[in-house]
Amino acid sequence: MSQEGVIFIGQKPTPNYVLAAVTQFSQGSKKVVLKARGRAISKAVDAAEIVKRFLGDKVDIENISIGSETVGEPGKQRTVSTIEITLVHK
Amino acid sequence: MSQEGVIFIGQKPTPNYVLAAVTQFSQGSKKVVLKARGRAISKAVDAAEIVKRFLGDKVDIENISIGSETVGEPGKQRTVSTIEITLVHK
Repeated sequence: MSQEGVIFIGQKPTPNYVLAAVTQFSQGSKKVVLKARGRAISKAVDAAEIVKRFLGDKVDIENISIGSETVGEPGKQRTVSTIEITLVHK
Repeated sequence: MSQEGVIFIGQKPTPNYVLAAVTQFSQGSKKVVLKARGRAISKAVDAAEIVKRFLGDKVDIENISIGSETVGEPGKQRTVSTIEITLVHK
């Protein structure tokens, strides 16, 4: 199994992403990075908090970073905010 | 003027909070903390990114922390995620 997993947070319900993260840790990943853009940012924070409550002191938030990305076709581009939350298994 | 300001991100349009943060820096604040809960978390990230673009290399993100809070009356309580983004004037 890979040592670092990435989960892209999108339109699905939050528990889907929580389960995906917990599964990755249980399969031996040391780090799981939750990535989200735009309105899914709130969901990424929810998912990280629920994983923390679920796995208790076995998981820490190692890093949180925010940024901006340009999306859309040329002429219709707009800027969206992004977040990356890195969860680490202790 | 105070050296640290706190801005609570709520229902208003994002530019209101951007203006509030820029105003606090222009009045001499060294740090401005953007705080948000629930779905306003995405707006807080947007506001922080726009302030960074607006003030360029004069402002850095010093820290981002997330957490959970219990809100609502007894019997109707629910948990919401929170974020605090600390912007610092260089």
